[in-house]
Amino acid sequence: MKNKDIYEYDIVIVGGGISGCEAAYTSADNEARTLLLSISMDNIGYMAFGNVVSVKRGIAAAGEKIWNSLIFSQTAKDNMIGTKDIICAEIENNGDKIIVDRKRHMMDMKRKIESQENLSTRQGLVTEVSFDNNTYNTITSDGTSYKSRAVILSCGTYLDSYIFWGGYSFAAGRPGEITSKRLIINIMKMGFRFEPSMIYVGPKIDGRTLDLKNNRIEKIVYYPVYLGKSCIDYINSTSVNIKYSKNLESTGNVKNNIPIEEIISGPAKKRKYKVDIVTEGKDTREMYIDGFNTAMDGDMQSSALKLIEGLENAIITRPGYGISYNTLSPLQINKKLESKKFPGLYFCGKINGALEYEDSATQGYIAGINAVRRINNIK
Amino acid sequence: MKNKDIYEYDIVIVGGGISGCEAAYTSADNEARTLLLSISMDNIGYMAFGNVVSVKRGIAAAGEKIWNSLIFSQTAKDNMIGTKDIICAEIENNGDKIIVDRKRHMMDMKRKIESQENLSTRQGLVTEVSFDNNTYNTITSDGTSYKSRAVILSCGTYLDSYIFWGGYSFAAGRPGEITSKRLIINIMKMGFRFEPSMIYVGPKIDGRTLDLKNNRIEKIVYYPVYLGKSCIDYINSTSVNIKYSKNLESTGNVKNNIPIEEIISGPAKKRKYKVDIVTEGKDTREMYIDGFNTAMDGDMQSSALKLIEGLENAIITRPGYGISYNTLSPLQINKKLESKKFPGLYFCGKINGALEYEDSATQGYIAGINAVRRINNIK
Repeated sequence: MKNKDIYEYDIVIVGGGISGCEAAYTSADNEARTLLLSISMDNIGYMAFGNVVSVKRGIAAAGEKIWNSLIFSQTAKDNMIGTKDIICAEIENNGDKIIVDRKRHMMDMKRKIESQENLSTRQGLVTEVSFDNNTYNTITSDGTSYKSRAVILSCGTYLDSYIFWGGYSFAAGRPGEITSKRLIINIMKMGFRFEPSMIYVGPKIDGRTLDLKNNRIEKIVYYPVYLGKSCIDYINSTSVNIKYSKNLESTGNVKNNIPIEEIISGPAKKRKYKVDIVTEGKDTREMYIDGFNTAMDGDMQSSALKLIEGLENAIITRPGYGISYNTLSPLQINKKLESKKFPGLYFCGKINGALEYEDSATQGYIAGINAVRRINNIK
Repeated sequence: MKNKDIYEYDIVIVGGGISGCEAAYTSADNEARTLLLSISMDNIGYMAFGNVVSVKRGIAAAGEKIWNSLIFSQTAKDNMIGTKDIICAEIENNGDKIIVDRKRHMMDMKRKIESQENLSTRQGLVTEVSFDNNTYNTITSDGTSYKSRAVILSCGTYLDSYIFWGGYSFAAGRPGEITSKRLIINIMKMGFRFEPSMIYVGPKIDGRTLDLKNNRIEKIVYYPVYLGKSCIDYINSTSVNIKYSKNLESTGNVKNNIPIEEIISGPAKKRKYKVDIVTEGKDTREMYIDGFNTAMDGDMQSSALKLIEGLENAIITRPGYGISYNTLSPLQINKKLESKKFPGLYFCGKINGALEYEDSATQGYIAGINAVRRINNIK
């Protein structure tokens, strides 16, 4: 009665963030039968860490040819001359950095993924990947299993992760989203080693509460502000109480980026720091504070922001946060991002500690194209 | 140094779904200083259970005047004559049921919430609500606490909930989203009693895999199909193995709606059932199967759908699922949806077992308007 054949693919991708989307698109575009599994179909192409994209950095990471073939940069860059309304502004050096409309960019990514031939998408929490008789078996929590010749793991920050502020934390892969505990245990049973890593994200504020003085306009897209002495002193005065900082030292965690409270107290400290307040997009009043990554307690973040000129009345809509998760120890994969021990098993994106969207997208492409070559037996 | 006054509001709403949005909008629109707390700012106005809205049912639930003042129905109904492109189609009886564009509807809800005077929004997982000296104190997991004169709990399906299929389950408030465990414990400490409840959601499929025979068009918005004998027999043959059904009987759980596997085997069984395949929206190829709510295992859902004419090749993008969560035992609130024991504490939406979006929106309005009356001392 059951027709199981739809559960056999050439390549299965676990995780639908920037890296997983790129891997899936590359795989399907090269005619491999591809399945993209994501915890939530609503979050295909989700941008978790701000919405400022560096075009030059992307080209440097991937090379011009690859960068132009990435759906991430098609959306982010090619639309600069298009009509899709996905770019909010270009800042710095004539388009080196662009502010993308976060929601519309995500919708465009999802649209491109869904329109791609040879590519299926499916919502599912992956609990296990195993390898037997040259075949991978990927199992989701609804009891479905998928066979394939290659698997690409692009699980982002979801592997046994928690979100934290100074004295508080809870288990989550991103704010409001579940973490994946069983998958990492099963991958470790295959012999893989992981390292705890941390990422910090900046707060978002209600754009209506920005004080633009004489420049008041209905809606701004980009507004640079400066952290002066009083703000820096305040952050320094609070950071002695921040527990995560001690945890960090005692466990020797890798840090994927550095929070403002460490930048300010570090050896290269300055008397003034610039951060950019950028719009989230055309359909919202939320604005992201780019460069103010922090894991201070929510009320400390609010107090610190109020000491910045222009933000005296700012109201936070989403506090910044730190996220602790697990990254693959790097010596276990080769330059194709393929496991040295398990041929056909690839890792890309934040699971490798990728820093920026551009890196994640590029790694997705590299994993995808090499998985295709693997299943086509191209040496 | 700290400026704490922004953390004092007239009314705090916990939960940013349909009901919470309505409560917040009503409260702020009536000039109460209002804060809306949501686990994820990206999911303000999230539609978790399909995207078909009944206009007549909404008017019956709320009355014409209230229905027209709800932001939910402003988006769903008033835009029928507008330009916002939120309506995909009208089906049945000249607009009695409408298919809304799920993502655009959500974005429009968020836009309206963010544009409202007197209303702040903030991302936060609420862990505790307490009442002391005529003041409520609401605490989030980032360590921030908010004082208010009234609190409206619209936590939806998030209170100590899990998602399940026949033999599988995991803790989640919605697919991919965390459940809230600490809040319900703290509310129960205040003396409130809860009852376990269940809701079932239908699967979504890749619209490209619909077989429209001679009616093939680029994109359809609405397509009725019929479950015939072979599909019904298959579902009946599988349901003997479905564990949740036994759990249901043994715990005496309230059921908020009924899955297809129970409808088919129930006393009112028919030889043919109609279900509606409706588009998710203009920016996606996903389609929702309205009326096929199910908690069968993922592969059984797929097998059952393949026995329906037109769905022989259908590929599921999101399997349907059951969700078990906690609803307030109803005798603890009055007709204003206010706690009999704690004046100023309101409950609305799915936490009360509300069935449809229309009911949730109406309850949000009732809680909001009565909270405003309470803080203004209107008897």
